[in-house]
Amino acid sequence: MADRAGVSIATASFAINAKETTKVSEATRHHVLAVAAELGYRPNAMARNLSKARTSFIGLITDSVATTPFAGELIRGAQDAARAHHHVLLIANTESDPAAAREATSMMLDHQVRGVVYSTWYHRLVRHPAGLSGVPLVLANCYTDGDEVQSFVPDEEGGGRSAAELLLAAGHRRVAFINHSEPSPASAGRLRGYRAALRAHGIRYRPDLVLTVSHPDQEAGYDVGHRLLRLTLRPTAVFCYNDRVAMGLYDALREEGVRVPDDMAVVGFDNQEIIAAHLRPALSTVALPHYELGHRSLTWLLTQALTPPAPAPTRTLIPCPAIPRHSV
Amino acid sequence: MADRAGVSIATASFAINAKETTKVSEATRHHVLAVAAELGYRPNAMARNLSKARTSFIGLITDSVATTPFAGELIRGAQDAARAHHHVLLIANTESDPAAAREATSMMLDHQVRGVVYSTWYHRLVRHPAGLSGVPLVLANCYTDGDEVQSFVPDEEGGGRSAAELLLAAGHRRVAFINHSEPSPASAGRLRGYRAALRAHGIRYRPDLVLTVSHPDQEAGYDVGHRLLRLTLRPTAVFCYNDRVAMGLYDALREEGVRVPDDMAVVGFDNQEIIAAHLRPALSTVALPHYELGHRSLTWLLTQALTPPAPAPTRTLIPCPAIPRHSV
Repeated sequence: MADRAGVSIATASFAINAKETTKVSEATRHHVLAVAAELGYRPNAMARNLSKARTSFIGLITDSVATTPFAGELIRGAQDAARAHHHVLLIANTESDPAAAREATSMMLDHQVRGVVYSTWYHRLVRHPAGLSGVPLVLANCYTDGDEVQSFVPDEEGGGRSAAELLLAAGHRRVAFINHSEPSPASAGRLRGYRAALRAHGIRYRPDLVLTVSHPDQEAGYDVGHRLLRLTLRPTAVFCYNDRVAMGLYDALREEGVRVPDDMAVVGFDNQEIIAAHLRPALSTVALPHYELGHRSLTWLLTQALTPPAPAPTRTLIPCPAIPRHSV
Repeated sequence: MADRAGVSIATASFAINAKETTKVSEATRHHVLAVAAELGYRPNAMARNLSKARTSFIGLITDSVATTPFAGELIRGAQDAARAHHHVLLIANTESDPAAAREATSMMLDHQVRGVVYSTWYHRLVRHPAGLSGVPLVLANCYTDGDEVQSFVPDEEGGGRSAAELLLAAGHRRVAFINHSEPSPASAGRLRGYRAALRAHGIRYRPDLVLTVSHPDQEAGYDVGHRLLRLTLRPTAVFCYNDRVAMGLYDALREEGVRVPDDMAVVGFDNQEIIAAHLRPALSTVALPHYELGHRSLTWLLTQALTPPAPAPTRTLIPCPAIPRHSV
């Protein structure tokens, strides 16, 4: 290529790699680049990376890419942030297989990632991911005991409050909450938010209006819907732990001739588009901020984590915005 | 590290990189590896890659990772195949943005991928992806005019036939088909399959039993459901273009007091888990083979494409299996 352009290899290299020295004139540089483009010459990114202290890779580990569209949103957010900072994402999906997780970690360290985002498909406590102690790390949608690693997680309490607020602002006073019975940041946080919203409206919290389900899916929503309608003091509004529960609840209400929202207002959680936007009537809900979790984590890695002094890790809450539709 | 192990740098390097020469004894090799492990030594994969003719990267371009769980399944299939062949996936999601696609292509060529899988979230004709002429290429869920590039796509006709067969095998003779009005491999293929199944059962094809919708979603299924029940010769079974249409159809049938499957049998397409498995009753459907599309494409790249002579490209059909549940 240098031959074709009639310059030395060093000159061609200086021109192409745009070193900050001024060893080649602008004119020469343009000439070399034109010849390079004509020949389809492509600088070898790895050779370039090798000559720098660090590469431009960032790792993203997900524990489930296929189950829900959530991981997709998180990947999209992370990728947009990586692009904005001229970095390339190395994505590895472990499907919760420890061997796959070890391999992913190895692969990322082998390729000298500048940092790793470790993410889970539902908000939960995790142990410090093994084998990643030598590299900047950030957690998305999960956190460690004691928060010794920076993390970005959904503001479940704020989301629960927003969900209940959709119902309370419409004038409802007897608002039930169908919660997940398993202890988790989501079930605990959404309950706190629900209670805070009641308090703000001067409404006494009634434990008998909180029903729980062990598997928060459509079938559970259907079953609990029938229970709900048998309560002595029937609620006029229900906040469901997630959109799937709300979808099953719709079926139960329809069977009993209870109209949404006229006879019963319903709010979900998750904003799982394919359900929430297409139920009859379309479901008012609260969105999980997966795009933002991915975007904020990546941005933190590329700005905060790599600029000394490293900031003290915190668990940063990302808002869960209300998505009003037609079920309230 | 060599120092600590008491061997020369060359010996340590031979031991760690497991060259096929026998320049180091097994005993020395084990000793060096033990010291390396103890020191947390990690070979630099990029330096290793540079010394080989080609790297171990494979590129995967998707046009939409966040809209449906389909891209996730395809990624999972591709990743499993890549792992089995000791390759690393570089995943880029373009969200149909041409600038993002150009960047993804550049990034992959910069990192000297051994091949690229180009995939789309719905089965369609694409133009030859720009800028990828110098690298082995395979298409997943899409194909080019004239099939000059190897592709793996769903067998829409076989899937349509399986869907209709679920209904015909249960004894139905008046089977309607709600199709997508837009010409596509899916709408054309599923219609051919539906007609082939009727033929195989000696049933005359009636165009008036094929209804079309312009947006195949729940709202369309709801509207067409009401049309369906007004037909002079009411069908006893319906094959829906996809699960979302079936979900809306359920709502219309319920409103009109038509029970599934007693009064009307329903079959969907896609096996979009969150809908199909959780409708009341659970929806019998036909699965799109996204995992297999990803897996087969990757495997083809790493086996067929890289072993000369390169095989002539074909459009390979991947079966869409029937998933019987409780709606027939």
